[in-house]
Amino acid sequence: MPRIDATRLLKDLRDLARIGAWKTGVHRPTYSDDDMTARHWFAARLTEAGLEPEIDGIGNVIGRSSVAGPKLLLGSHLETQPHAGWLDGAMGVIYGLEVARTLAPSLGQRIEVGAWADEEGHFGNFLGSRSFVRGVDDAEIAGTVNRHDGTKLADALAHAGLAGRARARLDPARYRGYLEAHIEQGDELDTSGLRLGVVTSIVGIWQYQIRFEGVQNHAGTTRMAIRKDAGVALVRLAAAIEARFPQVAGPRSVWTTGRILLQPGAASIVPGGAEMMFQFRDADPARLLVMQQALEGLVAEANKGPCAVSLTNLSRSTPKLMDPAFQDALERAAERNAPGMHIRMPSGAGHDAQIFAETLPSAMLFVPSIGGISHHHAEDTRDADLVLGCQVLADAAAEILGG
Amino acid sequence: MPRIDATRLLKDLRDLARIGAWKTGVHRPTYSDDDMTARHWFAARLTEAGLEPEIDGIGNVIGRSSVAGPKLLLGSHLETQPHAGWLDGAMGVIYGLEVARTLAPSLGQRIEVGAWADEEGHFGNFLGSRSFVRGVDDAEIAGTVNRHDGTKLADALAHAGLAGRARARLDPARYRGYLEAHIEQGDELDTSGLRLGVVTSIVGIWQYQIRFEGVQNHAGTTRMAIRKDAGVALVRLAAAIEARFPQVAGPRSVWTTGRILLQPGAASIVPGGAEMMFQFRDADPARLLVMQQALEGLVAEANKGPCAVSLTNLSRSTPKLMDPAFQDALERAAERNAPGMHIRMPSGAGHDAQIFAETLPSAMLFVPSIGGISHHHAEDTRDADLVLGCQVLADAAAEILGG
Repeated sequence: MPRIDATRLLKDLRDLARIGAWKTGVHRPTYSDDDMTARHWFAARLTEAGLEPEIDGIGNVIGRSSVAGPKLLLGSHLETQPHAGWLDGAMGVIYGLEVARTLAPSLGQRIEVGAWADEEGHFGNFLGSRSFVRGVDDAEIAGTVNRHDGTKLADALAHAGLAGRARARLDPARYRGYLEAHIEQGDELDTSGLRLGVVTSIVGIWQYQIRFEGVQNHAGTTRMAIRKDAGVALVRLAAAIEARFPQVAGPRSVWTTGRILLQPGAASIVPGGAEMMFQFRDADPARLLVMQQALEGLVAEANKGPCAVSLTNLSRSTPKLMDPAFQDALERAAERNAPGMHIRMPSGAGHDAQIFAETLPSAMLFVPSIGGISHHHAEDTRDADLVLGCQVLADAAAEILGG
Repeated sequence: MPRIDATRLLKDLRDLARIGAWKTGVHRPTYSDDDMTARHWFAARLTEAGLEPEIDGIGNVIGRSSVAGPKLLLGSHLETQPHAGWLDGAMGVIYGLEVARTLAPSLGQRIEVGAWADEEGHFGNFLGSRSFVRGVDDAEIAGTVNRHDGTKLADALAHAGLAGRARARLDPARYRGYLEAHIEQGDELDTSGLRLGVVTSIVGIWQYQIRFEGVQNHAGTTRMAIRKDAGVALVRLAAAIEARFPQVAGPRSVWTTGRILLQPGAASIVPGGAEMMFQFRDADPARLLVMQQALEGLVAEANKGPCAVSLTNLSRSTPKLMDPAFQDALERAAERNAPGMHIRMPSGAGHDAQIFAETLPSAMLFVPSIGGISHHHAEDTRDADLVLGCQVLADAAAEILGG
């Protein structure tokens, strides 16, 4: 099997990390000046690698080959969460570049590489990969704003010099499939001393808003017996969820109350309204359903109290199975390069691969996150693991392309 | 006993409610144009009643008598909470005016009346009565801002035309004591069908901030077993408080979690930090201590979990006993005017009377709040109860002055 160039790989990763460097990490929000610098930098690397780069109307950077015959698409994303780490997304993009460079001499330019815009969701959910795989329309773009500062997506695209450009679309017939490498973001590989994760599926995320309606009142003059305290109703339900979910969850299920709001939120006012954001994740659709049923049961129970409780589902993504043959190819490559040091595991985080999996055979490879840290400037992976992961991806890509 | 003029009382209350009218209530924040209009309107009524009005440097409106001999001070406050009711504060001020008018023919001008600025705390705590009773210094005024919009107190005073005026100070030797009437704000009188409450004490309010330190992490990739979720720690403590406090509280204790904040407060992020505002109130100092000990015990228990929990006391006010002889005078007047329709009760809310009680014999009279509603435009009291309350206050004032 062709060997990747470890020095070149690590240099490209470190060069890219200097664009928008922040502490030991990177701050490169989608369509920021640093983000666009990174996209143009990456396009230049694609050209050097013999691919024809395009930066399309949504900011996707796609390196295409002019060679005939079936190809394999590799990629991930270049932008970062605010004040985040240097590898999340960037690693998978540079892996794609390095695999394309490594396999070109033996297989020809049959690896194409993409950097999908805004996987991190500054403006939406999987904007770049959705645009490429499903298409997004002008109405969605017109209606989308930056979730942090409210900037209109159309204005951000214009500022980035992308206004008026066509949005590229996937031709599924062109590809054998899609591969994406990523840092694990959790601590399972790091804790167990393993070096590679072959992703079995990307979890479904079921997201809810739970609203409590009570009666706002004076915190000094309103007797406990007659209160309809929406905050107390919320606290009781949230505590009941924490008590109940371990009994209904699977071994890899996760659930999170990320946000709580009491209204009006003043020390001396009994809250008249309250809201919480709650989500759970699992790779098993049946398990997701069981957790939803448990949640519905707890909400029904809560509704017997003095406040009205309403449960609204905000989103319910289907777990996406990774292609079994691709998983096998990744596992064989992992076993060849690091015998016994790999495991099959679901991804608890969403990735562009879940969008590609709708249309193409798709798979993912994880490398360890030191301490499980991600979305933080301390995010890191050992150099040896960065090199190993790229070699495994190259070997699997070569096998899939029949090289 | 001299009879109050019910028509004049109700007309003044309704005239005053038109200044800053909002829906069926009033919006008259401290030092707003409407608030200052109300202060000048009230000063004119004091003049008509034969008193000499002063609007001092903090906005207190004080109607003084030129007659010699011991006097009795009556009052409350004119400003309102934002978009609130027509009686809270205003009623006690107009009662003072009406009692002064009623008793002048028989007792001379021995009732003085005050409207204490900002009892509602737009800028601070009991700013007007503290200025009058204890004095506030220029440094406090320079350092105080409006809690809603950040306006500097000094700028608000200047806008209100009060800059450069002296702040009046209480001469305790001038008065037999202080009386304040107020709507109950709770539902105890209304629910029990009683018409008058003789306040025994103003509760102590003990206020805490509870802070939880966990580790912020990815809500998809962080296994439940290793999470240090500050939000979960908060929810568990808040639920434990709700379970425990009924066992340690007295029959009239109240406790409230008015505010909860999860940090960073996003759906897909395990909260790394969390905060709650918690307070309890009781008229019995020993009971307050028992509740604090229970809280400290629960916090110690919570600290055995994965997150660090810290309890900070923000304020601890002492319950203020109302003068027993004044209570007796109010009760005799209540029994004379409404036999069997009165009760002794603590005040769960804070009032200017608690500041006066530091220096003067002080007492309070409550009239029913329909449905226990206050700080809302629906706040109301039956006309018959408004008239009855004022008569009882007049009778008690006359007795206290030996009339």
